[in-house]
Amino acid sequence: MKYNDATYEEIELVMNKAWIAFHQYRKLSLKQRADFMRTIAVELENCGDELIHTAMRETNLPEARLRNERARTIFQLNSYAAACEEGTWLDARIDTANPGKTPPKPDLRKMLVPLGPVVVFGASNFPFAYSTAGGDTACAFAAGCPVIIKAHPAHAETSDTVAKAILKAAEKCKMPGGIFAHIHGASVETGKALVTHPHTKAVGFTGSFLGGKQLFDWGNQRKEPIPVFAEMGSINPVFLLPEKLKESATDIAKMYAGSITLGAGQFCTNPGLIIGIESEDLQNFITNLGEEIKHIAPAAMLHAGISKLFYDNRTKALAQQNVTIVAVSDTSAKENQGIPTIASATGQAFLNNPVLHQEVFGPYSIVIRCKDKNEMTEVAKNLEGQLTSTLMATENDIRSNDELVEAVKNICGRFILNGVPTGVEVSLSMQHGGPFPATTDSRFTSVGADGIKRFARPICFQNWSNNLLPDELKNENSAGIWRTINNELTKKNV
Amino acid sequence: MKYNDATYEEIELVMNKAWIAFHQYRKLSLKQRADFMRTIAVELENCGDELIHTAMRETNLPEARLRNERARTIFQLNSYAAACEEGTWLDARIDTANPGKTPPKPDLRKMLVPLGPVVVFGASNFPFAYSTAGGDTACAFAAGCPVIIKAHPAHAETSDTVAKAILKAAEKCKMPGGIFAHIHGASVETGKALVTHPHTKAVGFTGSFLGGKQLFDWGNQRKEPIPVFAEMGSINPVFLLPEKLKESATDIAKMYAGSITLGAGQFCTNPGLIIGIESEDLQNFITNLGEEIKHIAPAAMLHAGISKLFYDNRTKALAQQNVTIVAVSDTSAKENQGIPTIASATGQAFLNNPVLHQEVFGPYSIVIRCKDKNEMTEVAKNLEGQLTSTLMATENDIRSNDELVEAVKNICGRFILNGVPTGVEVSLSMQHGGPFPATTDSRFTSVGADGIKRFARPICFQNWSNNLLPDELKNENSAGIWRTINNELTKKNV
Repeated sequence: MKYNDATYEEIELVMNKAWIAFHQYRKLSLKQRADFMRTIAVELENCGDELIHTAMRETNLPEARLRNERARTIFQLNSYAAACEEGTWLDARIDTANPGKTPPKPDLRKMLVPLGPVVVFGASNFPFAYSTAGGDTACAFAAGCPVIIKAHPAHAETSDTVAKAILKAAEKCKMPGGIFAHIHGASVETGKALVTHPHTKAVGFTGSFLGGKQLFDWGNQRKEPIPVFAEMGSINPVFLLPEKLKESATDIAKMYAGSITLGAGQFCTNPGLIIGIESEDLQNFITNLGEEIKHIAPAAMLHAGISKLFYDNRTKALAQQNVTIVAVSDTSAKENQGIPTIASATGQAFLNNPVLHQEVFGPYSIVIRCKDKNEMTEVAKNLEGQLTSTLMATENDIRSNDELVEAVKNICGRFILNGVPTGVEVSLSMQHGGPFPATTDSRFTSVGADGIKRFARPICFQNWSNNLLPDELKNENSAGIWRTINNELTKKNV
Repeated sequence: MKYNDATYEEIELVMNKAWIAFHQYRKLSLKQRADFMRTIAVELENCGDELIHTAMRETNLPEARLRNERARTIFQLNSYAAACEEGTWLDARIDTANPGKTPPKPDLRKMLVPLGPVVVFGASNFPFAYSTAGGDTACAFAAGCPVIIKAHPAHAETSDTVAKAILKAAEKCKMPGGIFAHIHGASVETGKALVTHPHTKAVGFTGSFLGGKQLFDWGNQRKEPIPVFAEMGSINPVFLLPEKLKESATDIAKMYAGSITLGAGQFCTNPGLIIGIESEDLQNFITNLGEEIKHIAPAAMLHAGISKLFYDNRTKALAQQNVTIVAVSDTSAKENQGIPTIASATGQAFLNNPVLHQEVFGPYSIVIRCKDKNEMTEVAKNLEGQLTSTLMATENDIRSNDELVEAVKNICGRFILNGVPTGVEVSLSMQHGGPFPATTDSRFTSVGADGIKRFARPICFQNWSNNLLPDELKNENSAGIWRTINNELTKKNV
């Protein structure tokens, strides 16, 4: 199906409606917001097999993966709805008046309120979980913000179907008219018009560095700059420490061959960089990883553009000085399929060449052979910000490599021990967001209910009488939420 | 005393030391950080009268005010130290493993960690509370970040004395060498070198819009953009609602004459805009406010530059079409003194003229006479972001002006009912930060212990064994901090 880019007039209309809706939606109770989100989840389920088939056709992703992803999306909507309603995220704080103090201390009460309309860009690699009804949308609705989706052109019909489900839920829940809008636009201009519109108060994005950075710059260059939360991927370094490597080189190789090629390597948490210290064990690991990779068949990538980019970046990386190919899949790749590939280079080559620090989005990873522990630490210190870093290490390895461990920790949002970075659990403890360029603001996450806070800001009510305050800040804690009253966290009434 | 601008070499040295210190300081316990902050408070007190006299000479501020401000600064250091140690701000979250789930759910634990070296720009109007050992510094130390101060040139000697007190405290507490540095620099280049240095990971600023916006832009234009938290002032609108005005026009006039001229009007929360509906009561209020202002003597402003800017901006505002002077102080102003001034204009004049929306930093306020409730709401909707908004209103006024109340609430960080915006209580419920251009990120505050979060980011530990985790995330909750374990907020062990 072919969709036309939205015109400026259509965008203007949508944004004006969203602005009006904002003033109505933010006054609804947490329960009303949560009910709306849960209804979206139901409608998404109601889209049935047809939605899965549309997505399969548009993204080349296999059916099982798409069913899982939809289930995850439904889980996100329901669990963020639960968090929304539970209310701890509001960071409610109450400091009661003290008229006897000099000067007299007024009654102060604070909680989070929504920022305003949020523009969300659909992600190519997550047609459900990070697109139309995905994590950013769920967080924005929970925060009290209307959402305007810019559909990803690579799965525009999937996006359109999900949008209809959201609109159906909005109607069922009697939401204000402009609470949700769906915009098509393959051109850069559509995105720019949305980010720079005065009624847009925040942006959510998951995708490439170039795309995310451009939105971030537009957001900052506005007369009124707005937060642009862009998750722009990573190479997710994995450090193989000596004792662990000696113990389990074969197991690690097997585990990582799977992680590198999972979903044709199209995850922002794909391990694109593996670092070890030159040794027989490392050679053993490299050989094993190569053997595993040879037996993994190429898989179709999301679309021709991503496949082309994979081969361009792979070619560029492999053409760098002192980079060798360890192994490629024994099965040759058909059109649009990404071929599983492992490369290798020395620590010195990596340190001297920024090209090797760049993401090759797809089933690719490079093993860096450092000459010693110091060089490995140097590599860690020279890496840019990452969504995840992983240590494959025994307790002994960790205790005897403090400087390395601290350096690795300092560059990432999620720090994994003896596991793989692929697989991002949706829970409150998850941090999906790391130092730039992994994301544009490492102080927030795009996975887990803490992501709601990206789209909210605190407001303090000074000297308001109890009956005029929002319910969440009244003396009687009718909703039973956690609040910090005079520095004590409690569910009590004032 | 004359100070030279720091050279690039000196800045390079300082930043490198801060970077090394960061890796040591962040490993210290919350108690060690808190002890350091409390020691700074003691050393600040130990500076005695001499510091007050230096500040009086440099800032023209009266002794009582400076003594109060130092006491406030000490309170900030001590109360943020208490918050640091108490640990709720870490947002500790634990989700235990569920190996039975498909796919298996790993153990995930999250807490805030420091961003890195923070550059703080001293504020001209708060030589203690928002300068060298002020709120930003205290928050950064609590978060685990080294601090580099760019002294405000208008009170460089005061800043130098406070810096020595901090260094003394650092030595007493055996802090790492580069934990704190003090840089002089009257030139733009010094500020730019500090903000753009690769080791700088965040910036705190309190001052003018032009200054703050420049730092924000530099921060965003870096290869690795960093958060610049700039508090850039406000005109702090005050809305006089009809019933309340009828009841207490005289009292409000008296209260506001005091607030407008407090500290020669040199507060970012100074009420620079008062909006009412044309009526006998409003005329009554204006007359009373004028009478009060006539009797308030001019006071010395911070320095010649600020005084000149006050007169320039005042002249510009008063020269606008349809702006009239209501009253000025009966006492003529001496050199560098700001003359208390009240102007007035119609709602239409205000709506049509952006110049009248600009801050006149000093003892100045303009009363806007709207023709009706709708025009008053229009004014509210057309205001830029503000640190504070105030309603002078009865309960009845509020209930019958929902659209106005919502519009006013939407533009501010602190929403005051029947009070004055001057006076910013230091407490957890305070929000000192509003939508742009009041601050660069309305999601954070620069007053109150929540300000610590500006300089920290979450990190998630996946699959770490208990003994390798930071103490705050171990199964045993030895520090007794609040943690969210499997979605339940508790002080229990896992």
